[in-house]
Amino acid sequence: MSLTGFGDKALTQRVRKAEIKIMSEQKKMVEAITSMDEDFAKWYTDVVKKAELCDYSSVRGCMIVRPYGTAVWENIRDILDKKFKELGHENVMMPLFIPESLLQKEKDHVEGFAPEVAWVTYGGSEQLTERLCVRPTSETLFCEHFRDVVNSYRDLPKLYNQWCSVVRWEKTTRPFLRTTEFWWQEGHTLHETAEEAKAETEQMLNVYADVAENYLAIPVIKGRKTDKERFAGAEATYTIEAMMHDGKALQSGTSHFFGDGFARAFDITFQGRNNTQEYPFQTSWGMSTRIIGAIIMTHGDDNGLVLPPAIAPIQVVVIPVAQHKAGVLDKANEIKERISKFCRTSIDDSDNMPGWKYAQYEMKGVPLRLEIGPKDIEKNQCVLVRRDNREKVFVSLDELETKIPELLKAVHDGLYARALKNREERTFTVTSMEEMSKKLEEKTGFVKTMWCGELECEEKLKEVVGVTSRCMPFEQEHISDTCVCCGKPAKAMVYWGKAY
Amino acid sequence: MSLTGFGDKALTQRVRKAEIKIMSEQKKMVEAITSMDEDFAKWYTDVVKKAELCDYSSVRGCMIVRPYGTAVWENIRDILDKKFKELGHENVMMPLFIPESLLQKEKDHVEGFAPEVAWVTYGGSEQLTERLCVRPTSETLFCEHFRDVVNSYRDLPKLYNQWCSVVRWEKTTRPFLRTTEFWWQEGHTLHETAEEAKAETEQMLNVYADVAENYLAIPVIKGRKTDKERFAGAEATYTIEAMMHDGKALQSGTSHFFGDGFARAFDITFQGRNNTQEYPFQTSWGMSTRIIGAIIMTHGDDNGLVLPPAIAPIQVVVIPVAQHKAGVLDKANEIKERISKFCRTSIDDSDNMPGWKYAQYEMKGVPLRLEIGPKDIEKNQCVLVRRDNREKVFVSLDELETKIPELLKAVHDGLYARALKNREERTFTVTSMEEMSKKLEEKTGFVKTMWCGELECEEKLKEVVGVTSRCMPFEQEHISDTCVCCGKPAKAMVYWGKAY
Repeated sequence: MSLTGFGDKALTQRVRKAEIKIMSEQKKMVEAITSMDEDFAKWYTDVVKKAELCDYSSVRGCMIVRPYGTAVWENIRDILDKKFKELGHENVMMPLFIPESLLQKEKDHVEGFAPEVAWVTYGGSEQLTERLCVRPTSETLFCEHFRDVVNSYRDLPKLYNQWCSVVRWEKTTRPFLRTTEFWWQEGHTLHETAEEAKAETEQMLNVYADVAENYLAIPVIKGRKTDKERFAGAEATYTIEAMMHDGKALQSGTSHFFGDGFARAFDITFQGRNNTQEYPFQTSWGMSTRIIGAIIMTHGDDNGLVLPPAIAPIQVVVIPVAQHKAGVLDKANEIKERISKFCRTSIDDSDNMPGWKYAQYEMKGVPLRLEIGPKDIEKNQCVLVRRDNREKVFVSLDELETKIPELLKAVHDGLYARALKNREERTFTVTSMEEMSKKLEEKTGFVKTMWCGELECEEKLKEVVGVTSRCMPFEQEHISDTCVCCGKPAKAMVYWGKAY
Repeated sequence: MSLTGFGDKALTQRVRKAEIKIMSEQKKMVEAITSMDEDFAKWYTDVVKKAELCDYSSVRGCMIVRPYGTAVWENIRDILDKKFKELGHENVMMPLFIPESLLQKEKDHVEGFAPEVAWVTYGGSEQLTERLCVRPTSETLFCEHFRDVVNSYRDLPKLYNQWCSVVRWEKTTRPFLRTTEFWWQEGHTLHETAEEAKAETEQMLNVYADVAENYLAIPVIKGRKTDKERFAGAEATYTIEAMMHDGKALQSGTSHFFGDGFARAFDITFQGRNNTQEYPFQTSWGMSTRIIGAIIMTHGDDNGLVLPPAIAPIQVVVIPVAQHKAGVLDKANEIKERISKFCRTSIDDSDNMPGWKYAQYEMKGVPLRLEIGPKDIEKNQCVLVRRDNREKVFVSLDELETKIPELLKAVHDGLYARALKNREERTFTVTSMEEMSKKLEEKTGFVKTMWCGELECEEKLKEVVGVTSRCMPFEQEHISDTCVCCGKPAKAMVYWGKAY
């Protein structure tokens, strides 16, 4: 419907305004993004926007995850969800709100979360008698439910998970990395014994490491958080830590062992095997949309996003070349149909120039591009171009069923190897604070040192060198006998780094 | 860990308390639920609780959807999501919050929703300068995003959907049927022309009708809502209306055509094909966890839940009979493995008595029960029992691959036929208000009448007869020439009923 209500002049102005907007959009599309080396932070937000992963909303710190970003998240979700269910976990849907009194039941937990929650104070026009917070995490809700449904050791273990969004009132936010609202899964389990709960905590950390490495091509270090970095209310927090392209660390998934602390605070008991009344042991574990930030910053390059094949919404994009020529579009569509049986694929038969299309799908990080033109058709071949290293190969059309899976695997392996190389080149072993500062001035990265276990030294390293402890890795190395900071006897080897 | 910190007396008391709790739980399990005819509302909540679909939380009106209920919802979600995607829709994830000023942009919309939203007024300890409501529905958020991403007719249509929970501050709540928080999908689409948007509205209503009838075995009436029952801000609302076992109506899915009203309110324009600046046309459509309430109340009986096979988390439960006898458990497990290739199955090899197990899985509405005991094994057969009519058949173990799918289909068809029969027996055609009252006093149900189209008559029917208009069905019938209420010339045939 045209805006017939407008006067001619106003109409012309609006049309012109829209034309300029469209032209500038198109220009922006083909313009190069900020280079990584010039400004990594700017490069990151450029990629997020131009690959159409997410957009800002009018609520401060809340993002709109666009179709492409949502498709990436759904692929990650499906991989994790399948693994959770294979291990016996069941999904539930818990309420969005936590009454203030419920949040306050576990002392450490409320101290950790209360300062950063959103409070609902009105329902319609009526002021609530008790404030409700929008869940920042759901331990308290799960505890309340566990108390109702667990009576006997026969009811254990309870292996629950939920997919939802949570809200933490962050001061500074960045898309995917730190947002007021973010999406995640939170596993919450309840066990008869501490040993069983600990095994669960470890098992789920291994699931996260498996997904990070074998699906997202992100090498990770598994370890335990120091007390300072522990989750509010947990006895132990385990983490997988990844290194981004710029050498900074990103905590990519955590798993918490709660002991029976929450159970005691919420009075969850069960009748044990010897007719004794006992407290169960609890865990929780989560991976969030933050991992999309990790994917971007681990694999991306100056041409945009690079997606690991396992979670790429489009694994192979088919680009017809000289598509106006007889038979090209038909052949391209035929190939698209054929390969859609074993990979996620899409065809771009729009009027845009092939070069523009190439840039577009590189920006979107599609792992493989399949080009097919009249000459290729004559030779019964096509061109396959890898996104990770731009390697081109001519492939016979008879071999697509074997070559495409091979190349997707090669892209995954290439990404993993490159990320691992980056981490290795940026990981330093040191024995003094001076050395630590010097190494990190040369190059941002991880530093491995011994540590005495004291909070004081951790705080000093933060203050003087600007690093936080990433984890005490499961694979401990003996670097020296003494703490890198105070010189007292060392208790553990620690990875330090600058974190997102 | 035993509670060693307790004195002997306190410990004994706690153990005793737990024992009593367990015994009473077990007793409750085998106890019959309230019968439908005695108290339908009580029967409903009994089924919801005892089939372990959901539980109450400490937040008024918010439910905890338990694993079994969540699995049902996930099955419904997967069916719908696949259909949406096949029709070209893309999922997105929009923010949970709507700033007050954004909610207020469309006048009718804010009037409809503002009285029933939850307001966030504090972030951490800081009072917000503008209140945020927890989304009751997301038209306003989608509009804001559409304004940013739509420039040209080339950007249209936008076919978006999201899976999330929404919050409406309800005064009285019932599990699944009316809860403060509920889960749903909300589709939001934007089109170049009114015709295209109208076609989308109709298409999505047809998707809902298809899913209701062919997957959930719920016959529905498709039609248009009267202006009184229209969605706040919509030009037209379409609905599928189902009849519950007790004769009451349940609105089971809606699809709205917005015209360009929201686009004008939010200043969404695009450059049209003739270089004119135009307003796009919009739709939204949703189906929610309420549909689980519809499933319960359409198919359930005095033995509990009855699930349509397409969405049953367990389609066939295998129950070994005399499982202590040699070979029984092995055979039962072998069968379970074998049939798991073509149906969702589970085995109950617990120590509970077979009779207790039968009651348990009937309560949970599992469509087929497969019993296998020593005598069956001798005869190379098993017993298959349908949940809908308790019909038992002996089936050769060689025929499971054909017989089980046949029987699942038979359960679906049986449920659909029974529901349709109930609706037909409870649908009355009348030409006067007296007749209407009389019919509905005899039996709760749907009444078909002619209507003049005036709000006044609608309100009078509500006041005098206690019914609301369910819809003006697409399949119009000519019952008489005049309105059932005022006697003026009739404009449409309407279904009236008492609604959940």
